[in-house]
Amino acid sequence: MNRSSLVACLLALSALTHAQAPPTLSGKWTITLNFAGTTFYNNADFEQHGNKLGGRFTGDKLEGTIDGATVHFISKSDDGTTDEVHATLTGDTLSGTLEETDPNAPEHPAHWTLTASPTPPLEHKTPQRHDFIPTTFYRQFSPLNQPVLRVAPGDTIHTTTVDAGGQDEHGVGRVVGGNPETGPFYVVGANPGDTLVVHIVRLKLNRDWAQSDDNIVDRGLNSDLAIKTRDNGKTVRWHLDLANGTASPEKPGEHMKNFSIPVKPMLGCIATAPNPANAPPATGDSGSYGGNMDFNEIGEGATVYLPVSNPGALLYFGDGHALQGDGEMNGNALETSMDVEVAVDVIPNTHLRNRRIETPDAIIAMGLQGSLDDAFKEATANMAQWLTEDYKLTPSEVAQFIGVASEYHISEAADRNAGIVLKIAKTKLARLTPVPK
Amino acid sequence: MNRSSLVACLLALSALTHAQAPPTLSGKWTITLNFAGTTFYNNADFEQHGNKLGGRFTGDKLEGTIDGATVHFISKSDDGTTDEVHATLTGDTLSGTLEETDPNAPEHPAHWTLTASPTPPLEHKTPQRHDFIPTTFYRQFSPLNQPVLRVAPGDTIHTTTVDAGGQDEHGVGRVVGGNPETGPFYVVGANPGDTLVVHIVRLKLNRDWAQSDDNIVDRGLNSDLAIKTRDNGKTVRWHLDLANGTASPEKPGEHMKNFSIPVKPMLGCIATAPNPANAPPATGDSGSYGGNMDFNEIGEGATVYLPVSNPGALLYFGDGHALQGDGEMNGNALETSMDVEVAVDVIPNTHLRNRRIETPDAIIAMGLQGSLDDAFKEATANMAQWLTEDYKLTPSEVAQFIGVASEYHISEAADRNAGIVLKIAKTKLARLTPVPK
Amino acid sequence: MNRSSLVACLLALSALTHAQAPPTLSGKWTITLNFAGTTFYNNADFEQHGNKLGGRFTGDKLEGTIDGATVHFISKSDDGTTDEVHATLTGDTLSGTLEETDPNAPEHPAHWTLTASPTPPLEHKTPQRHDFIPTTFYRQFSPLNQPVLRVAPGDTIHTTTVDAGGQDEHGVGRVVGGNPETGPFYVVGANPGDTLVVHIVRLKLNRDWAQSDDNIVDRGLNSDLAIKTRDNGKTVRWHLDLANGTASPEKPGEHMKNFSIPVKPMLGCIATAPNPANAPPATGDSGSYGGNMDFNEIGEGATVYLPVSNPGALLYFGDGHALQGDGEMNGNALETSMDVEVAVDVIPNTHLRNRRIETPDAIIAMGLQGSLDDAFKEATANMAQWLTEDYKLTPSEVAQFIGVASEYHISEAADRNAGIVLKIAKTKLARLTPVPK
Amino acid sequence: MNRSSLVACLLALSALTHAQAPPTLSGKWTITLNFAGTTFYNNADFEQHGNKLGGRFTGDKLEGTIDGATVHFISKSDDGTTDEVHATLTGDTLSGTLEETDPNAPEHPAHWTLTASPTPPLEHKTPQRHDFIPTTFYRQFSPLNQPVLRVAPGDTIHTTTVDAGGQDEHGVGRVVGGNPETGPFYVVGANPGDTLVVHIVRLKLNRDWAQSDDNIVDRGLNSDLAIKTRDNGKTVRWHLDLANGTASPEKPGEHMKNFSIPVKPMLGCIATAPNPANAPPATGDSGSYGGNMDFNEIGEGATVYLPVSNPGALLYFGDGHALQGDGEMNGNALETSMDVEVAVDVIPNTHLRNRRIETPDAIIAMGLQGSLDDAFKEATANMAQWLTEDYKLTPSEVAQFIGVASEYHISEAADRNAGIVLKIAKTKLARLTPVPK
Repeated sequence: MNRSSLVACLLALSALTHAQAPPTLSGKWTITLNFAGTTFYNNADFEQHGNKLGGRFTGDKLEGTIDGATVHFISKSDDGTTDEVHATLTGDTLSGTLEETDPNAPEHPAHWTLTASPTPPLEHKTPQRHDFIPTTFYRQFSPLNQPVLRVAPGDTIHTTTVDAGGQDEHGVGRVVGGNPETGPFYVVGANPGDTLVVHIVRLKLNRDWAQSDDNIVDRGLNSDLAIKTRDNGKTVRWHLDLANGTASPEKPGEHMKNFSIPVKPMLGCIATAPNPANAPPATGDSGSYGGNMDFNEIGEGATVYLPVSNPGALLYFGDGHALQGDGEMNGNALETSMDVEVAVDVIPNTHLRNRRIETPDAIIAMGLQGSLDDAFKEATANMAQWLTEDYKLTPSEVAQFIGVASEYHISEAADRNAGIVLKIAKTKLARLTPVPK
Repeated sequence: MNRSSLVACLLALSALTHAQAPPTLSGKWTITLNFAGTTFYNNADFEQHGNKLGGRFTGDKLEGTIDGATVHFISKSDDGTTDEVHATLTGDTLSGTLEETDPNAPEHPAHWTLTASPTPPLEHKTPQRHDFIPTTFYRQFSPLNQPVLRVAPGDTIHTTTVDAGGQDEHGVGRVVGGNPETGPFYVVGANPGDTLVVHIVRLKLNRDWAQSDDNIVDRGLNSDLAIKTRDNGKTVRWHLDLANGTASPEKPGEHMKNFSIPVKPMLGCIATAPNPANAPPATGDSGSYGGNMDFNEIGEGATVYLPVSNPGALLYFGDGHALQGDGEMNGNALETSMDVEVAVDVIPNTHLRNRRIETPDAIIAMGLQGSLDDAFKEATANMAQWLTEDYKLTPSEVAQFIGVASEYHISEAADRNAGIVLKIAKTKLARLTPVPK
Repeated sequence: MNRSSLVACLLALSALTHAQAPPTLSGKWTITLNFAGTTFYNNADFEQHGNKLGGRFTGDKLEGTIDGATVHFISKSDDGTTDEVHATLTGDTLSGTLEETDPNAPEHPAHWTLTASPTPPLEHKTPQRHDFIPTTFYRQFSPLNQPVLRVAPGDTIHTTTVDAGGQDEHGVGRVVGGNPETGPFYVVGANPGDTLVVHIVRLKLNRDWAQSDDNIVDRGLNSDLAIKTRDNGKTVRWHLDLANGTASPEKPGEHMKNFSIPVKPMLGCIATAPNPANAPPATGDSGSYGGNMDFNEIGEGATVYLPVSNPGALLYFGDGHALQGDGEMNGNALETSMDVEVAVDVIPNTHLRNRRIETPDAIIAMGLQGSLDDAFKEATANMAQWLTEDYKLTPSEVAQFIGVASEYHISEAADRNAGIVLKIAKTKLARLTPVPK
Repeated sequence: MNRSSLVACLLALSALTHAQAPPTLSGKWTITLNFAGTTFYNNADFEQHGNKLGGRFTGDKLEGTIDGATVHFISKSDDGTTDEVHATLTGDTLSGTLEETDPNAPEHPAHWTLTASPTPPLEHKTPQRHDFIPTTFYRQFSPLNQPVLRVAPGDTIHTTTVDAGGQDEHGVGRVVGGNPETGPFYVVGANPGDTLVVHIVRLKLNRDWAQSDDNIVDRGLNSDLAIKTRDNGKTVRWHLDLANGTASPEKPGEHMKNFSIPVKPMLGCIATAPNPANAPPATGDSGSYGGNMDFNEIGEGATVYLPVSNPGALLYFGDGHALQGDGEMNGNALETSMDVEVAVDVIPNTHLRNRRIETPDAIIAMGLQGSLDDAFKEATANMAQWLTEDYKLTPSEVAQFIGVASEYHISEAADRNAGIVLKIAKTKLARLTPVPK
């Protein structure tokens, strides 16, 4: 079976009402489904009229009844699958079962236990600044790791990251390498279906060296260049001149004796924890949740939008690079530790399908796939969706606009997923007819 | 940082000797390295001459001394990295530290704790047949899951597998879908660096239906075919005629009213647990350890060779298909539960880099990469390595032989990794000059 | 501008009638359009009712009038483009002009001169066998080369081909290498829009050696294998044992001393001349017209179906291989000269989009694209179209059937176009509900 | 046989001396080889010492003798192939034969006729400005088309180009579409092995409209986007505001009502005629010779370096775009006619393998292959070669420098060849140690 089939297993659930005074189920609910040790999260939006229950269950219309504390409803998806929920309300919590029936195999329904509770409204209080000194660094973007700090929408987190090899600002190895992450940070009020907004306020180098190498990654090698560089492969240390903001190889060869280049600090990894029903990805991997994107415009001033798949979003970041050319062609950029300051926010109920990036000058869609050819298609499709959703362009307008406004860069060639970004300058977006809010 | 850098973190260790009667360290040792909660396994092959210690440590030459229970040695790898071990022997166990120094960054060595114990010799006793009824099914090829059964090299395991969606032979859902696996089986005597041999003795359908769909996977769709099949997407149940060994759609369309086709049972997944330092992969993924290969020649009579990365190898299998065309073009093949019988064996100390497959008629190298183009390169390189190692062909002979003998099939197009296999018929191998054993 | 835009330039034309007795224009016409030295061919199917003209002009409905010898009509394509024709009938020939107007740019119509003549009915006479000794060998599949022989549908051509390097059965160089071709053969009655059927009756080796090399093509090399084979690159001569039908390297290395392998002769190239408005492709290229497909099942007993783009079809073939593994992994297979016998036939008015191949056991769709990933999509789409057109399968049935019946091979990896074939066994096709003829 | 084998056919030749007063053959010669109607060009660099002949023949060392007017010499290439030349000097012209022998097939040498004449020294006279009004437009980058004008190194050509569809500045169709070209221009003194330098002095729009469409090219479509844009496909006319330098769709949809965007004129095609032994490519194709590169930085101020394969170089250009986003995502950019002014120059004897591009700010290597993945590898390899040849970087330095300095863009996704460019900013190149000239 293939990976996408799992998504088809995603289910949904129900609601119920407290006895005497007819309780009001109306509103948003966060639903948890379990079967044999596996958990999914989902959403419902109930509309109660007397003892009738309407609204949407995981996006599909539902119809049901409320009889005292007993709730029963059915929803049907586009492909004919039926979800039938029986549940009981106790206090604020619905608990019961969900039976999912495939019209082509009605004799073998799937059974789930479900619990649900009202989704608390998103609150914006006075923003706080949190100083956080990390002691543990994780090597998977896992929903199972305990949050290290709880923050609210609007808050700023000021912390540090170790380098990709696990060394901190003192050069002390704190953890085995492979992009160990700071976090996860629990963002209060972020729920599955929401978007987490991460604005990078500040990225400051905090030591005077970075580690890289002199490889060229396999994706960049044709047979001719593979043979020519077959003796490459050594570690290269770069000196970081913190005062002047430049980098130079510590032991340069003859033609780079006087070479120095301005640094441009960036975060190689930034992620929310993905769907808890899936295997937690390694911190070298990437997906709709972000992850090891290794894109050199994710630096100071950039904003990253990430889909929320777990309560609290569970934000991770790490893998700072003092500088990285497009594609991270050495496999390792100028890997170093950093002081990081990010501000977080939440946009509720957006059902964002994929990470998005914004800089002061551009909006940027990213494709992350097993080849550049597939990443290119995905970057294009993701931008088309963005222009459709946020700028209301028709398919014909999408094509005309991309045709004159596209800037495609290769963001990453070193990882399992290749990355291509499609940038659209904000000056060009500004020429489109504004969408009434 | 990219995924391959982790490998560069792999380290090594040491040994030591018991006091008075000079102990004999000579022989193979299994080494465990730990740092900040992460574990690696490795091997050493010590050669003791009096108080001198020689041999190899993770493949590199070592030089050291034994002073009572105190062992000290150094080994240097090709890229100049130095491993220095200080350890103490207590009973059969060495314990101590390893310091790894990169010549380009000598001021920041990495430190590991290490323990080591002698690798027991591989024993072949009278083969046993184990009947095993699974109760738990895993959704990651994890080294952390508790083994469900211990078996010896030469033994046969007779058990069952649920289908990719988690349903068993009675159609009962036992676990959330996504290729849940039977296992892991602990093979006594299998150690990191060995090869696990899994011979599929028998694959027997044990229910009369399979589930599939009518999609065509994205990898097979150009824009023309994507548009033509845009309304596809429904579940398709197939009836399995167990007596005649054929499959037919339960509700066929007009042109498949009388359609039936012979089944050819196969296992979509077969794997050893991979390197414990990495994130355990989902059972929809694949790699050097095997995994979700979805190759339709992994059926009765086939033998799969898998690298061992953990003590006991930790064998998993599942995801039976009653039938699958090349590429698993619907995303789901004819997914069904099965009775499975496999015989296991161990070939010590082979350092196999990648899974290999053998059928009665052919040897088969597989490439598993993010695109067909890359999978093709890998299949070719893996076969070249096989012909070099086992048939001693020179690079020129490898090319000449592949040029006339290659059969390339697409094995899998539905998963994150695309699969291409390079088959060489045994009748053609038989024309090569035999290699003296 | 991209390559497909040229297709958009394809136009169309008209017809007219002789004076007094109202002439009957009804029937098929072959149309020639010219502009500034460039020629296109096209078809019309006129239906005359008195002085009204109907029918189809290049597939689009037309409406017009006939006034004596003067014909005027208009047709409109799906995208709104209008073709307006004014022409005069003189004897059997229509001549006039075509004005093509794009609704988005009406002020700048394109103007063409057109001539048209009735398409003669296809006749099948008593088949003849032609013995033909080639003296010229062409290095482009060009519509401009003079036909070397005229043959009729049903006839058999018996001739010879030189090897890819231009050497004939005596080892004499006759032409510079690069797959020089025998032909073009003019098939009387074959017209643009028809299908040329080429059945390979016999392929006989006519000399006792073949030339190959010990490279592995770039498409098969990852960086590891590129480095290992970097000293490969020498010519390898193979001895062909004509009596026993086997091949052996003339100067084998140690491990291939006794190596021999059965030959399986095939034609690397078979083509019709493509659209005359395009640049004639080199004989190393391939496309919808066939060409240098290098597929090892195009041997004795195979039938190749090719679209006709020029009057007479203009059949070329050459590039015989005594043997070739899948992918032609050395870049050169066992290149040799051959005695060739093919039978040709014509299926009128099929508008076949792409070459098709049939063997005694299977129908075979081929994808030819710049990467294996794209060739895979095209092979799948071409087979889907075949199953839709000839077996009337619905999109859902196409997917279900391919899912259980597909066999995908890599046909060619050495050329600019990579080739992947999708084979369906005739035993499986036989289970589909027959389509009433 | 594959395309690269033709290159292996490339040969070479010799020289000889006039009788009495020992003639001096020393110097560069342009060689023409012919066989059965096919022509190759090549170079020799003779060094005569008395009656001994040395130097290089097509890059390989030669040894020979001069006896009156009779010249005989032999050269051997790295792969063991021997070229033996017998020739006679008459006036300034050598004529004779070349026999090429493959050590693995010595019994079947290839025979060529050869003629050679001294390569005239490159002269730079006072630059001239040529005003040229084209009347013929070519649709192949062919070495067989008659030059339309002879110019000298240093001269400037001022002329016009029609748009990709063949329409000129008055909207008059002059030729069938498919990127018809202005040229070929014969550059006196440019010889095979040299580099043609084309500096784009000026690109001026000369009409107030451009034609495009609202497609998205297949390479940019995943199945989701293919379905969403399935009703796209119409022609889109853009108004060009020549005074303000902006473009707007003539009939905008609702969200682009006020849309305008600055133009940035560029040439989609610029090429030298490629190797005369190969089939002349269509003007939609591209290769080492340049061609239809469709790269939006080939505009005013850019310089293109192209290998010379024919005497006079034979420069073509056309396919002007008023504006094109990265990738030419509509298939057609804003296609329009132009006034073009280019300055040409010649760098002798460089044996440039591939087109190169330079802008005021950067050097730019381009990969052009059948997939983005392969184009990426080629762009990287071409830049590595450039840095090695011109900046003398070692393989390790190449990798380190690219790792921090790379900017990768997708240049073209609409054509048969996908294009990716690797740009290096001149500010970064300036930090490398200068190479002594």
